[in-house]
Amino acid sequence: VRRLRDVGEHAWIAALARRLAARRADRRVLLGPGDDAAAIRPGRRPLLFTADALVENVHFRAGWAAPAALGRRAWAVNASDLAAMGGVPRFALLALEAPPALRAADLDALVRGFVAAARRDGARLVGGNLAAGPHLAITAAVIGEAPGAMVTRAGARPGDELYVTGALGAAGLAVRRLTAGAAARLPDPPRRVRAGRLLARVASAMIDVSDGLLQDAGQLCRASRVGAEIDLGRLPIAGACRRALGRRAAAFAARAGEDYELLVAVPPAREPALRRLAPRLGCPLTPVGRLLAGRPVVRVRGLDGRVARIGRGGFDHFRR
Amino acid sequence: VRRLRDVGEHAWIAALARRLAARRADRRVLLGPGDDAAAIRPGRRPLLFTADALVENVHFRAGWAAPAALGRRAWAVNASDLAAMGGVPRFALLALEAPPALRAADLDALVRGFVAAARRDGARLVGGNLAAGPHLAITAAVIGEAPGAMVTRAGARPGDELYVTGALGAAGLAVRRLTAGAAARLPDPPRRVRAGRLLARVASAMIDVSDGLLQDAGQLCRASRVGAEIDLGRLPIAGACRRALGRRAAAFAARAGEDYELLVAVPPAREPALRRLAPRLGCPLTPVGRLLAGRPVVRVRGLDGRVARIGRGGFDHFRR
Repeated sequence: VRRLRDVGEHAWIAALARRLAARRADRRVLLGPGDDAAAIRPGRRPLLFTADALVENVHFRAGWAAPAALGRRAWAVNASDLAAMGGVPRFALLALEAPPALRAADLDALVRGFVAAARRDGARLVGGNLAAGPHLAITAAVIGEAPGAMVTRAGARPGDELYVTGALGAAGLAVRRLTAGAAARLPDPPRRVRAGRLLARVASAMIDVSDGLLQDAGQLCRASRVGAEIDLGRLPIAGACRRALGRRAAAFAARAGEDYELLVAVPPAREPALRRLAPRLGCPLTPVGRLLAGRPVVRVRGLDGRVARIGRGGFDHFRR
Repeated sequence: VRRLRDVGEHAWIAALARRLAARRADRRVLLGPGDDAAAIRPGRRPLLFTADALVENVHFRAGWAAPAALGRRAWAVNASDLAAMGGVPRFALLALEAPPALRAADLDALVRGFVAAARRDGARLVGGNLAAGPHLAITAAVIGEAPGAMVTRAGARPGDELYVTGALGAAGLAVRRLTAGAAARLPDPPRRVRAGRLLARVASAMIDVSDGLLQDAGQLCRASRVGAEIDLGRLPIAGACRRALGRRAAAFAARAGEDYELLVAVPPAREPALRRLAPRLGCPLTPVGRLLAGRPVVRVRGLDGRVARIGRGGFDHFRR
């Protein structure tokens, strides 16, 4: 088994640069991996710039996912941030921290997974960094192109309807099972770049659901200075989650993280346009609540019809 | 003492976003920290895109440098990569991995150090990420604007003269002392963005010296498919290194990492232009050798005049 300490940082990077250089040329990439920096030529539009990380024993544990799935996931969590602004990812860097005893083949597979997932979304890996560390940590930085009108978290108004793409709870359930030592497969995050780009035409605000629907709805509310009411009974629940948790599935899915679906606020006047767009999103879109005037508080209408304010519900790296 | 686990990820990020938003507006930053991604409007030029990381117990140990100095260093190692292509940094993301018990004030000071150093070089922190982890790891991604003619590692020709900016060995000496448990101050990396931008007008190839002069010269040679001969007797040695190591200083400085000076290849025809530029670089520029036809091997002319091929000399994360 060839490990990183056998191959060495520079030889590993050189081999990766050769493999990436062998791909079909891209006129927007003036200089790919292997030099001090990559050189790129974006279009005339404003650019979006984001970074996100997967850290071993924080976001995943060894054995939870194959290396290629980890690479795809590192791509997906970044693409999701761009999708939530209606952006289209174009260029990526991959900054890796890896233990010297890691199999070089595993790191290769991780990068291949990242590159393949990026390519499916129209983006290219143009460089990065490799450093030794006690564990595996995968940080990606991604540049995307902004749409004509940029959608932030801050544009929603009272009266806007809240929608969520796809289904919730499957990733959170897998994480809960894996954390408890049970067998489970951590699902790949959904691909929502296309949906985000289309929804940007009608959305007043958008955020991706990474820390749990209720918590991320709270972020949108604070940025937009509105309140929200979420109907638990309307949440689109992943089949696995509903089968496993029954009537508790909705409350779980509302707080579960790692879904990487989009939460979208749509003003009433744009509902007709939304209905025309919906069939092209490539995923279900479900109304889950509405925005209200007043303090930036998320209230939840339970399955019994009663409304409650909710406390901290989602994921915070430093408060468990 | 307020620690990260008392403050929480989201509250810490929100406070940072508020502080950064209070700064003077920048027309190139359409949307700063606090949303899913930053939105920026670069100029018409091609962009440079780079990422580099400082990992605790790999690049530094707790107590080696104050938090603000670590932040400045995280900026400097990235700015150095852009300087080595003649680029000017414009926008940065900061992806942090930090233990829950870290003092929030220390992380604040780290970010302030990063922001201040970026501003001095004309760049702005526009976003980032914060994740929990067992140690402190600081990854930055930086976008810069490329100069008219981009300088890579690959353009050098036999007959070009090799120059290095500033002086070598001070950082390597400090790392050696600190590693041995002695008192030392890890110097801030030099600021070479201006020098890099000017040298790009005359350079055929350029690289920053992060892993040791001989090793980084080897990278330039492999990319340019040339050989090199370095004169140990001509190396600009930092005063502290010379005083501490005497006649062994040159051999040490040739292999010491962490200098972040620029190694520049200049064709003979551009020597007159280089002499006109030199007074404006803001640092010394010293000829240290020349490029040769043949295999991409770095030879060293010792203080005794004898020439030897050198083996692996510099830093590799996975081979010590």
